[in-house]
Amino acid sequence: MIQVQLNKPIIEIASSAGWCFGVERIVEMAEKLLAQRAPDEPVYCLGELIHNPQEVARLRAKGMVFVKSHEELPPLEPGQRRKVLIRAHGVAPSVKKILREKGYEIFDGTCPLVTIPHRFAREIVEQGYRLVIMGDREHPEIQGILGEVEGLNARVDVIPGPEAIEALQIKASDRVGLISQTTHPFEKFAQLVGEVLKHALEVKAYNTICQATFDRQDAIRELAQRCDLVIVIGGRNSSNTCRLAEIASQYTVCYHIEDVSELKGAWLQGKRRIGISAGASTPTRCIEEVKTAIEHLSGCL
Amino acid sequence: MIQVQLNKPIIEIASSAGWCFGVERIVEMAEKLLAQRAPDEPVYCLGELIHNPQEVARLRAKGMVFVKSHEELPPLEPGQRRKVLIRAHGVAPSVKKILREKGYEIFDGTCPLVTIPHRFAREIVEQGYRLVIMGDREHPEIQGILGEVEGLNARVDVIPGPEAIEALQIKASDRVGLISQTTHPFEKFAQLVGEVLKHALEVKAYNTICQATFDRQDAIRELAQRCDLVIVIGGRNSSNTCRLAEIASQYTVCYHIEDVSELKGAWLQGKRRIGISAGASTPTRCIEEVKTAIEHLSGCL
Repeated sequence: MIQVQLNKPIIEIASSAGWCFGVERIVEMAEKLLAQRAPDEPVYCLGELIHNPQEVARLRAKGMVFVKSHEELPPLEPGQRRKVLIRAHGVAPSVKKILREKGYEIFDGTCPLVTIPHRFAREIVEQGYRLVIMGDREHPEIQGILGEVEGLNARVDVIPGPEAIEALQIKASDRVGLISQTTHPFEKFAQLVGEVLKHALEVKAYNTICQATFDRQDAIRELAQRCDLVIVIGGRNSSNTCRLAEIASQYTVCYHIEDVSELKGAWLQGKRRIGISAGASTPTRCIEEVKTAIEHLSGCL
Repeated sequence: MIQVQLNKPIIEIASSAGWCFGVERIVEMAEKLLAQRAPDEPVYCLGELIHNPQEVARLRAKGMVFVKSHEELPPLEPGQRRKVLIRAHGVAPSVKKILREKGYEIFDGTCPLVTIPHRFAREIVEQGYRLVIMGDREHPEIQGILGEVEGLNARVDVIPGPEAIEALQIKASDRVGLISQTTHPFEKFAQLVGEVLKHALEVKAYNTICQATFDRQDAIRELAQRCDLVIVIGGRNSSNTCRLAEIASQYTVCYHIEDVSELKGAWLQGKRRIGISAGASTPTRCIEEVKTAIEHLSGCL
């Protein structure tokens, strides 16, 4: 059977997609530091600035040196000044202390919205609740929160979502405080809170999911329901991008790509309405590139 | 088409159904007071002792006098002693004060599990949270809680469930404390907590749904899924019985009856598995009567 595509597909970008306030802010900080540096002066960044390989490559070309941890930072000569940028995800207080002791000048780009769960985590523990964090244990944001409550002698658990609730071994008399990684889906958090409440007498929960995440997730949910294909753009190590792909997949066919080079024409065949969304670390330029490529591949132009 | 019923239906009583600890306790208290009374001495009860008309009639015949409110209690002569029973649902502290001032001897049968939300309601308000109670505003249990926080100068709302959340007008900066009527469905409460968390920064919730309610609701949910008919027995003014019927109706055909006299043979036609459950105020005797009647009507005997 020969399939003839009579209509050009409609291409829609989600009403909320791509760079958020925290990412814009940190990229601006990085650009400023790079613009001001002396010709031979490296500007260090602890971890990848944002979870977007193209953007990281662009900044590396301008003189930014990315190190995986503070241990990779070279010891400074007496009187030598070096700048280190802390990215939007934040770090544990102990890391900042080490940087200071090593003599580095700290530029703290932690997103103000990421510092909110830090404060609540501490409050929860100090008020005598068990702390449950919904998030990825290895994610820098969660590592930062864990560092915040380190040594406070409380039970702290990190779980990916409600499906892992058994690991918490909640007792009826437990008082449980919950927070979420800022980029996790709200529905999973609400479900987790409900599940915990089923077992524990008292539950205290802070909605620490940031508004930008919330808006992006709402937008892709709405978009995915009326598309027969959704393309999500963003780093594969970007937690918030992975969540977007996860949500879209619940409603339609979804592909998660890092940039336009991964797009395949075969995916577009027979599709009538194609949605595009992108994670918080994806520049608008990348979204436009993908849109243009889809138009070309599907014969719109 | 003539339908021939080849098999007798299987009749199953829910694994948790009927009288709970609080009801057993209050009925025992009532029986004891009636047994000890002088021949001409009335024993008063504030409101219907339990939401079961047959049981109320039985106790009335033994000499219990039911009054709708403290205003109906006759003023006492100097030196005259009269007993008044407070039922399992509890009352507001102000009501107890009035009874004492009127000279009545109080027998407090408030279910210990009903006093828990009283304590938490006060705690929530004293800690500066808005209080949201999921329940029926007119239910004596809720009236008792409202009395507990009266004059504490806090915003207090009573809503039937998550569907009424708009009435709360929650702002992002709100700190919201939630409790539930002890007999309401847990799923609705968990959903409400999640909905509130969507709008408010901080949510504190106490699981005040009593274990007996929880068990009965779990049992009828499980039972209803494998039955093609469920009969729920209990007073039409019994909140917990109405909730059981509501849950069963989500899965199968369900009739809510007050006693065996309301059972109709036509309901049973062609049914292969019939479930029975009963509210907290329904004596075991009533459950057995309904089971026997179903057996007769469906030709089991």
